[in-house]
Amino acid sequence: MKSLVISGVRQQQCSYALILKRYSKCDMSDHFRNTIANYEGAGIANSKKTTEKVGPVKVHSDYDGKVPLIAGLFAECSKRFEKAQVEQFAELSEDYNPLHLDDEFAKTTRFGRTIVHGYLFSSLFSGLIGGTLPGSGSIYMGSTTSYKLPCYVGDLVRARVEITSIDEKRKIVKLSTRAYNEQGKLLVDGESTIMVPASKITGTTGLTQSKL
Amino acid sequence: MKSLVISGVRQQQCSYALILKRYSKCDMSDHFRNTIANYEGAGIANSKKTTEKVGPVKVHSDYDGKVPLIAGLFAECSKRFEKAQVEQFAELSEDYNPLHLDDEFAKTTRFGRTIVHGYLFSSLFSGLIGGTLPGSGSIYMGSTTSYKLPCYVGDLVRARVEITSIDEKRKIVKLSTRAYNEQGKLLVDGESTIMVPASKITGTTGLTQSKL
Repeated sequence: MKSLVISGVRQQQCSYALILKRYSKCDMSDHFRNTIANYEGAGIANSKKTTEKVGPVKVHSDYDGKVPLIAGLFAECSKRFEKAQVEQFAELSEDYNPLHLDDEFAKTTRFGRTIVHGYLFSSLFSGLIGGTLPGSGSIYMGSTTSYKLPCYVGDLVRARVEITSIDEKRKIVKLSTRAYNEQGKLLVDGESTIMVPASKITGTTGLTQSKL
Repeated sequence: MKSLVISGVRQQQCSYALILKRYSKCDMSDHFRNTIANYEGAGIANSKKTTEKVGPVKVHSDYDGKVPLIAGLFAECSKRFEKAQVEQFAELSEDYNPLHLDDEFAKTTRFGRTIVHGYLFSSLFSGLIGGTLPGSGSIYMGSTTSYKLPCYVGDLVRARVEITSIDEKRKIVKLSTRAYNEQGKLLVDGESTIMVPASKITGTTGLTQSKL
């Protein structure tokens, strides 16, 4: 059901993320900038010499901590939520709102069709954050969510988390959390605040072996 | 699994909610104030003559729109999340973080035990809001969540939503959303912003028959 964005050449991409970090504040030729911008989905749109942000740079699903965290790194996944998943979630959350479950009822509402629980499709962010970026050892401090458009049952949702800032001292990483439908329309816009192990900030691996 | 707070005498309780609304700004004897405060879980702690807030006043699970919305009304439910539910949610959300699923891994972390996904136990708020207070026709505009303590797998979670403000003109209701463990410790603290049908503000029923 879920398709993770695959870069194909992870090692090189990570190296390019490092290059982007090192050189984003420096002068570089347009040729070099364009070369790395077009490489494997890595881009340096909006990169400025005066900011730490180098992104957007897409990271692979097993990126997990292999390079230092920098603003601009992002991860994505997609999933289609069908009636069966919505029914399962209704049981788990005890949210039997007919707007999610009853076609006839949904027709009488402004939405016209059954819609997926917001907490269900937004939970894709949690998987991306805990599993990919920042990855293992991430601890949720808080999140905000603003619902923009409904996600209809059967819609393919694309969730995207992108690092927006890093507080190295407090080990706090902020990420924008956005979800889109197949037409590219924004469904939710939000932010998550995550505490990460110090090793994530510096890019050390082997977390599962050590006390987080 | 879930136990909704039952008042037993809903009709009377709703009437008392109305009384509380009408009289909260007026002088009343301590005897009368105490009588209604102690009736069926309804309380008027913090009620002031100068505020619209009359709560806390507990509402029944089928309260749904039978009296006008007022700040201070709250609804609660409890649910225990066991390993089976957490595993189901991992599949739905694609969040296979071992912190939620792997006892051995969880022992190596600061938590010491597996914990429930934040998005899973927080989804109880959605059920309360869509199903009880404000109830049917509620549309999520946004929410904030601040995680305070972990919810361990097997913990009984009590979720509580309480109306904190009502914008009658824009039909926007804000509710605090809090969850507690069995020891009464706060697990999450947040706020949800909900758009409601005009009929909810004034307390008209029969919503399922009309265009929301």
